[in-house]
Amino acid sequence: MTTTTTTSPLPADTTATELDSVLDAAARAAAPLADLGPRARSGLLTAVADALDAAGDELVPIAKEESGLPEPRLRGELLRTTVQLRAFATLVADGGHLGVTIDPADPDSPLGPRPELRRMLVPLGPVLVFAASNFPFAFSVAGGDTASALAAGCPVVLKGHPGHPRLSRRTAEIVTDALRAAGAPDGTFGHILGLEAGTQALRDPRIAAAAFTGSPTAGRALFDIACSRPTPIPFYGELGSLNPVFATEGTVAARGAALAQDYVASFTLGSGQFCTKPGLLFLPRDHGLEDTLVQATRDVPAARMLHPGVHEGFRARHAELTAVPGVRTLVQGGTGEDLTATPSLLATDVPTLLRHRDVLLQEAFGPLSVVVTYEDERELRAAAEAFDGNLTATVHSEPPEADAVRSLLTVLATRAGRLIHNGWPTGVAVTSAMHHGGPYPATTAPLHTAVGTSAITRFLRPVAYQGMPEELLPEALRTTPTEPEPGGAESASPSGGRG
Amino acid sequence: MTTTTTTSPLPADTTATELDSVLDAAARAAAPLADLGPRARSGLLTAVADALDAAGDELVPIAKEESGLPEPRLRGELLRTTVQLRAFATLVADGGHLGVTIDPADPDSPLGPRPELRRMLVPLGPVLVFAASNFPFAFSVAGGDTASALAAGCPVVLKGHPGHPRLSRRTAEIVTDALRAAGAPDGTFGHILGLEAGTQALRDPRIAAAAFTGSPTAGRALFDIACSRPTPIPFYGELGSLNPVFATEGTVAARGAALAQDYVASFTLGSGQFCTKPGLLFLPRDHGLEDTLVQATRDVPAARMLHPGVHEGFRARHAELTAVPGVRTLVQGGTGEDLTATPSLLATDVPTLLRHRDVLLQEAFGPLSVVVTYEDERELRAAAEAFDGNLTATVHSEPPEADAVRSLLTVLATRAGRLIHNGWPTGVAVTSAMHHGGPYPATTAPLHTAVGTSAITRFLRPVAYQGMPEELLPEALRTTPTEPEPGGAESASPSGGRG
Repeated sequence: MTTTTTTSPLPADTTATELDSVLDAAARAAAPLADLGPRARSGLLTAVADALDAAGDELVPIAKEESGLPEPRLRGELLRTTVQLRAFATLVADGGHLGVTIDPADPDSPLGPRPELRRMLVPLGPVLVFAASNFPFAFSVAGGDTASALAAGCPVVLKGHPGHPRLSRRTAEIVTDALRAAGAPDGTFGHILGLEAGTQALRDPRIAAAAFTGSPTAGRALFDIACSRPTPIPFYGELGSLNPVFATEGTVAARGAALAQDYVASFTLGSGQFCTKPGLLFLPRDHGLEDTLVQATRDVPAARMLHPGVHEGFRARHAELTAVPGVRTLVQGGTGEDLTATPSLLATDVPTLLRHRDVLLQEAFGPLSVVVTYEDERELRAAAEAFDGNLTATVHSEPPEADAVRSLLTVLATRAGRLIHNGWPTGVAVTSAMHHGGPYPATTAPLHTAVGTSAITRFLRPVAYQGMPEELLPEALRTTPTEPEPGGAESASPSGGRG
Repeated sequence: MTTTTTTSPLPADTTATELDSVLDAAARAAAPLADLGPRARSGLLTAVADALDAAGDELVPIAKEESGLPEPRLRGELLRTTVQLRAFATLVADGGHLGVTIDPADPDSPLGPRPELRRMLVPLGPVLVFAASNFPFAFSVAGGDTASALAAGCPVVLKGHPGHPRLSRRTAEIVTDALRAAGAPDGTFGHILGLEAGTQALRDPRIAAAAFTGSPTAGRALFDIACSRPTPIPFYGELGSLNPVFATEGTVAARGAALAQDYVASFTLGSGQFCTKPGLLFLPRDHGLEDTLVQATRDVPAARMLHPGVHEGFRARHAELTAVPGVRTLVQGGTGEDLTATPSLLATDVPTLLRHRDVLLQEAFGPLSVVVTYEDERELRAAAEAFDGNLTATVHSEPPEADAVRSLLTVLATRAGRLIHNGWPTGVAVTSAMHHGGPYPATTAPLHTAVGTSAITRFLRPVAYQGMPEELLPEALRTTPTEPEPGGAESASPSGGRG
């Protein structure tokens, strides 16, 4: 339970001169990277995945030392990271992500003769990715944002998180080497450190889009920078989420004890440092589960938090929440020495929640959750309507309660990106139907997901070609197939698969 | 050539109390409108199209009086408007726009057992549409933004343009009546007038997204409001575009006179008040077309501009451009009495363009264009690289010039949303492959189009359902088909087609 000191020196923040050189290389890489054929692009992602898989024994110990996360979790997270990279490699291999659409010419259109139109998606340009602290692999250097931006054909400038700077630097070296060996243009991937370098990069005209996972305060500040540039850019920020869980009377009657145990396991997982941590559990007033909840929470041992910033943030939020009149402390918990924290469980009711929504409806990042009792369906619905945007909302119910639950889900669908039934929000599947997003403040871009293969759409924009002869079209838009692309090698001419 | 005075009184600006009532009605309409089945939703769009088609003889004279546009153009534009509404009616009728994606559960996933996930798109909520002045039908009250937002299932609050307030109010009445008769929830469509009401609506938490077509200055001011709200919202602004045209030596040799004639016809169409007006024509230095260009421009008679604002704006831009050292006036043109303008043609060369890009690379809204001569391919490419975002870029070339043109197109694809070959940018087809958009400042949202059926994606966001039993899923996500929806009537339960 003590933090260890490392022998390797702490990487220094990126200087203004170094930043300029990274941004310049990214800008120069944009055109040749966009020109790579789909199979060559796919090969780059596979090369990065292979290199990271091979580097597990070197990277996991660094990650463990810097983040305090246990080794099995980190091994699993590294696997998740390379599975993500391979999923994007598969996605782009056939060019289906290019969204090719062709409208033939129509001389008899009611609005007058219409020329032929062919549309495809092209990369936006260099993407600035702000790494998260809570997933040092899967939402960091080679995480989902990097994978989806590279898959789209955009160079990536990665701003490493100060919570794991050595891991960040070493992962970046492995990614850079793998890309170079696989034939990527120089500048396809750059790594920077430091708040000043990150905000300077965000203001730089060479950056065409940005992605961020972190706190609402930092995320909003960066969003404001992105929007106020002379040329504003898309900013995909994942800012914070309460992930409420609503349990019916039928659930409590049928499986209350298991519900209580699973809830505690979910909100304390990884010391509550998940963006999908359930922050509130709504239970009927006479749920009778308090002893079980208290015991299960007390059974969870203290664990180290990620870095001093989240540790201090948790201490402050814990103090703020326990001070709210009408909030009872079921299990005190809170922060300890050496970055540790023990789980905290609070309790209140819906009227108190609504009265103090400014405090209670804010994310508490760490192992803390609030049990909120409701009187009846009307109160439950009023509580659901009080929420702003969330990544997830969960309902536990039994079959006879379908009518009431359907009405609750209709409200929740307007406030969350993912609705879960009889499960838990932690654990986000990497698949094509996943939506890891939601209305503000869950994200700054409610149309988009940060997890799953649809995340690639954040970094692509359409271009339509009108009346363009075959020989002037990008290969992906041609009707007549051309020579097969040399396997794995980059091609000099724009090329792509047919969608 | 004189403006007429109308007998009907000018509609008054919307008061704060009226605005509150419009926004309240829109917010209350959001849930029942979202719940409409796809066939019912489609029926609403068709009903609006039918009503507008039937009202042509009433609306076109009002449009003619207020905008000064000729009757045949307005008749064609009204047809375009109803064709757009019908295209969206067809699009949503089978629910294909819902983007339904289903991932089956996978107990053997390498990352651990995975629950079933089903994703679909849902409406964002009430959309504020700022009507444009230059298309009093197709980009105004019932134009593309309104049609795509209604198709998505979003209530629309339409801020009418002060250039045609009577047409705006009357069109809004017809749209509202048609929607009510077709069974739309009250509040599905609201109409407001006045700058103050528009900006207040944009700041209001009941508005979930906004769309705008107009000047860069107004558009940027509104974008800034949308981004700086406590809860920022997507702002789809189309701000301004230069639409450069590049003609090769081969083109001048093969068909120079026709090129010159067609160019003049394109930049003077509708008094140059098109967002796709070609603002610059690049010609090789010794093109020999000056006499033809001058004569063709002089042959175009004076015409009324849309309203005093654009007339004064054109006068000021004309004076600014002719004052640039190195810019020659080929045809003086400019503004006249009673809102009229005659076409103006200027000439310069690439070095002057690059030296004075701050003035010359800004849109001049009105019948003015600049012929820019280039020395060689290097200069042409330097000019292409000087452009910011544009809606369109056009290349005229002959077959033997393909290699040089391909390289030019690669540059232009990074700066424009639509690339046209041997054609003209004015005249935007309403089809599925159209992209009417582009990097900033052409638009504030480069991932999206304002014309064509893809415009619907601006107003939809994903929701994923995890482990949800059949009876709790929205109808569009169910595997087992349910009872057929009653034809044309709204259904009380969430429903939709299978994608």
